[in-house]
Amino acid sequence: MSENREKNIEYHQKKDHGRLIIQCPDQRGIIASVSEFLHIQGANITESSQYSSDPEGGDFFIRIEFHCFDLSNKMGELEKDFQELAEKFSMNYQFTNAQEKKRTAVYVSNEPHCLMELLWEWRSGDLYTDIVVVISNHETSREIVESYGIPFHYLPTNKNIREQVEAEQIKLMEEYDIDLLILARYMQILTPSFVGKFTNQIINIHHSFLPAFIGANPYERAFDRGVKLIGATSHYVTDDLDEGPIIEQDIERVDHRAHTEELKKIGRQVERRVLAKAVKWHLEDRIIVQNNKTIVFH
Amino acid sequence: MSENREKNIEYHQKKDHGRLIIQCPDQRGIIASVSEFLHIQGANITESSQYSSDPEGGDFFIRIEFHCFDLSNKMGELEKDFQELAEKFSMNYQFTNAQEKKRTAVYVSNEPHCLMELLWEWRSGDLYTDIVVVISNHETSREIVESYGIPFHYLPTNKNIREQVEAEQIKLMEEYDIDLLILARYMQILTPSFVGKFTNQIINIHHSFLPAFIGANPYERAFDRGVKLIGATSHYVTDDLDEGPIIEQDIERVDHRAHTEELKKIGRQVERRVLAKAVKWHLEDRIIVQNNKTIVFH
Amino acid sequence: MSENREKNIEYHQKKDHGRLIIQCPDQRGIIASVSEFLHIQGANITESSQYSSDPEGGDFFIRIEFHCFDLSNKMGELEKDFQELAEKFSMNYQFTNAQEKKRTAVYVSNEPHCLMELLWEWRSGDLYTDIVVVISNHETSREIVESYGIPFHYLPTNKNIREQVEAEQIKLMEEYDIDLLILARYMQILTPSFVGKFTNQIINIHHSFLPAFIGANPYERAFDRGVKLIGATSHYVTDDLDEGPIIEQDIERVDHRAHTEELKKIGRQVERRVLAKAVKWHLEDRIIVQNNKTIVFH
Amino acid sequence: MSENREKNIEYHQKKDHGRLIIQCPDQRGIIASVSEFLHIQGANITESSQYSSDPEGGDFFIRIEFHCFDLSNKMGELEKDFQELAEKFSMNYQFTNAQEKKRTAVYVSNEPHCLMELLWEWRSGDLYTDIVVVISNHETSREIVESYGIPFHYLPTNKNIREQVEAEQIKLMEEYDIDLLILARYMQILTPSFVGKFTNQIINIHHSFLPAFIGANPYERAFDRGVKLIGATSHYVTDDLDEGPIIEQDIERVDHRAHTEELKKIGRQVERRVLAKAVKWHLEDRIIVQNNKTIVFH
Repeated sequence: MSENREKNIEYHQKKDHGRLIIQCPDQRGIIASVSEFLHIQGANITESSQYSSDPEGGDFFIRIEFHCFDLSNKMGELEKDFQELAEKFSMNYQFTNAQEKKRTAVYVSNEPHCLMELLWEWRSGDLYTDIVVVISNHETSREIVESYGIPFHYLPTNKNIREQVEAEQIKLMEEYDIDLLILARYMQILTPSFVGKFTNQIINIHHSFLPAFIGANPYERAFDRGVKLIGATSHYVTDDLDEGPIIEQDIERVDHRAHTEELKKIGRQVERRVLAKAVKWHLEDRIIVQNNKTIVFH
Repeated sequence: MSENREKNIEYHQKKDHGRLIIQCPDQRGIIASVSEFLHIQGANITESSQYSSDPEGGDFFIRIEFHCFDLSNKMGELEKDFQELAEKFSMNYQFTNAQEKKRTAVYVSNEPHCLMELLWEWRSGDLYTDIVVVISNHETSREIVESYGIPFHYLPTNKNIREQVEAEQIKLMEEYDIDLLILARYMQILTPSFVGKFTNQIINIHHSFLPAFIGANPYERAFDRGVKLIGATSHYVTDDLDEGPIIEQDIERVDHRAHTEELKKIGRQVERRVLAKAVKWHLEDRIIVQNNKTIVFH
Repeated sequence: MSENREKNIEYHQKKDHGRLIIQCPDQRGIIASVSEFLHIQGANITESSQYSSDPEGGDFFIRIEFHCFDLSNKMGELEKDFQELAEKFSMNYQFTNAQEKKRTAVYVSNEPHCLMELLWEWRSGDLYTDIVVVISNHETSREIVESYGIPFHYLPTNKNIREQVEAEQIKLMEEYDIDLLILARYMQILTPSFVGKFTNQIINIHHSFLPAFIGANPYERAFDRGVKLIGATSHYVTDDLDEGPIIEQDIERVDHRAHTEELKKIGRQVERRVLAKAVKWHLEDRIIVQNNKTIVFH
Repeated sequence: MSENREKNIEYHQKKDHGRLIIQCPDQRGIIASVSEFLHIQGANITESSQYSSDPEGGDFFIRIEFHCFDLSNKMGELEKDFQELAEKFSMNYQFTNAQEKKRTAVYVSNEPHCLMELLWEWRSGDLYTDIVVVISNHETSREIVESYGIPFHYLPTNKNIREQVEAEQIKLMEEYDIDLLILARYMQILTPSFVGKFTNQIINIHHSFLPAFIGANPYERAFDRGVKLIGATSHYVTDDLDEGPIIEQDIERVDHRAHTEELKKIGRQVERRVLAKAVKWHLEDRIIVQNNKTIVFH
């Protein structure tokens, strides 16, 4: 494993690689100005994707990967010098250093398949992040998590104590200095107050092809409806349950013979891969959220 | 084309091939009795599929294809002799002669892509049926339909005259002696009274992955929700709009760049193939409906 | 149909939209220079995709769509002014006016399903091209082609007369002033001399998942090998039979019950959609060929 | 996990469930006779799938699942009594008790992803088997395997010592009383003598869509050929390298940006799920091999 892992990590860790994400009203000259800026700064664009919701009066989005010698030391200057341009075009923007790992927390309840997939992808070097803590309202996954050397916190919860448990969770998120929070089949509702602290930083996996089967027991309802495909949806979490911006969806074919238990089993395969893809794209700064939708620059 | 067509038709027309579809409470000895019956009648089973919703107290379904010398003359006797067995096991059953073509009517509104697909599959011999009439509330498809030598009836309709138009449609269905009625993007609601005359004989294509986006304008709503897959669903029509038993579903991947018009264009490809599959299975007596779900013996 | 068609055509016809395709050694400052150039010329970039085979010493590819007022009159100037930049960066490049339709010839033998798909997509406005002539070594498709108002030329051929038939074909291609030549199941080998006249201008559909089943009778061989998926491949035609740059591939699932005839039937569905996609991307100048591979900017 | 696992295991463990697999020349009356036999023995058919390569002079295949009270004690009698029928119809047949777990050995080299998938599916109860030993020519996976409580044997090998190593492996297979041998990315060639001892008992995962890219380094060659889909194939191992009967295949879409390392990464996902499916079907006695092809009764 180690060999693959090193190759993978090396691939992601490309030293001196940065990313620039921009969102602004569409207007003439953006790309010319931005690429001129980067060129002058000695940064060479290695990948670039853009999208315009409408060239006339719409929004403009771009994701640029660039190589820049001695990037970690240069980052501050880049960000500072960019402000003039950003103001001129009314840009929201973000520079990131591709080499810096985001810090991730995973929340899980009783079903460990999504957690397992993340741990495995992480261990094999396919997810470039530090999984720094796992939170669960069950003890089920403690052993496996700790075998990976990751702290495991058991925080049982229910409607009555939700707020004090969330306070504890928020404290932990702060202590562990979390950038990304993954709900890997965490079967608890989060309060708007909790969600509000992590805008576009919480990724959930919903076990249906949203917007079909919003809410509880989607596989039971899929069975009742007699669907011929079952799906899974990863999305950012907002105040509206199962209504956040969709990042990725996929499906698997089923037939009349599949009872609910079988649907769940097949569904677990879809959930695993849909969540892992969404997380990967987030870690690579490939996702921009606008108007409750995502632009994903694959 | 003619060569392929002949090969295909010959394949379906296998003389002396019959089908037996059975639905009954599950109980011991069904298969033994039925296969013994067919054996004694000189019929050889060439294909057989079964399903039991639950071996303990559930329902049993079987589809048998058999070869029987001189079937067209023998059919009456087969049906008569089978009654004793059918009563013993409380069976719903149906014998069909695979060589006899079902008579099909296609309903279409302004968008001809599903109609075109059916005409093309029919002409190339892939759909073993007689398309005997096309009904439309628009004149759009007249020319193409008549170029295939199929009668085209223009029946404009709206809420106020729906009932009298349906009366006319029913009269036509009777005159043309219809077995199957396909709604190939027919954008009119049918009354319960109309639907009630054709139980499990009307196949519709809905332009979404049901139960997501029930009702009008699914592509607009798919765009608004920012889904990453769009789908289509073929189903038998019941009184509940878009709630009938699902026969087949499929999806196509889309991304943030696809505006509503693009979603519709991609969707048309999915609609075409999903509807064609459902129709083909129906024509081959592969579908059994129970409790608003379908058992499809592929 | 007419409504959709208009919408589609309007969508493609966006007046004053141009495309710029560039291929050159990767080096610093390309994007800055090109976007600066376009900005100065009054052209606004509306879409841009790039790819670098290797930022260190690799090749750089970019496809830009832009809006430029009065483009048809301005095109000559754009092309002339760009030469300085092109020389500086050793660029291969091409400007196209998105509004100008490419002129297409379709070659077909006995099986019309791919031709039919193209005609249908063209008629419904999904393929932005002029299909100006159909060539066939069989009379099978004459009627349908002529019903679309397209000239049909019957040119029977075989090994012995191949060269003189090709001479006649080349003459026709010149007369019809062809930009793109589609082999829509044209089951004749073309000579290197013919192919050499239309580099990256001939698109073929091969009825297998290349490089599996290169050569004749792929479905028979797929059946013999017992594959569980069958595929189709669209590619540009080169001197090496079935070895040209792959544009698109897709598959369909099959099982042990599918005999060769059934494989062919399923395969026809895949062929149709794979070829139609490849043609669409070619017409939209989305494909760049390098080292016998394609870069496709979807 | 434990809850799911129990549910899954319970599902498979259905006490008193047996399977009967038959292969014989097609002829009249097989199904009638077999179902009559089972009925008389007090066995109730719960699932049945059949296939006939050709009703006239072809081969007939059937897989029957049945419920029979006190099956473990009754099995001997069933098998004995069936012989008369089997002789009459020249049947190859096999009764199995669904409750009895097959004993599985996994062979792996340096890449552990397929092994990991099997261990995980096994642990979560989705693979109904006993994984009794893992063999490897590398130490890479020892820790993870032993953490599951499974014996791990390190048997380094190469061309020169292959035969003595295989002798040792065969001894181990006998000691562990193996029913199924899985090559989960075991990158060593097996000799005909080894393979001959385990006919239709060795399942391999090949990292390409066979028959494309037979042999070594398929991802490198897929990259060179510029394919747009990469695949994986699970098959039974025969003397002909990569030519054994195909059990399952699947693909994933890739584009021009995917370098070989990326293809491998994507490929690992396909390999994992294709192998797991093939193993599951084998364990459930769903696969019949004939003429180097598989009939898989899903």
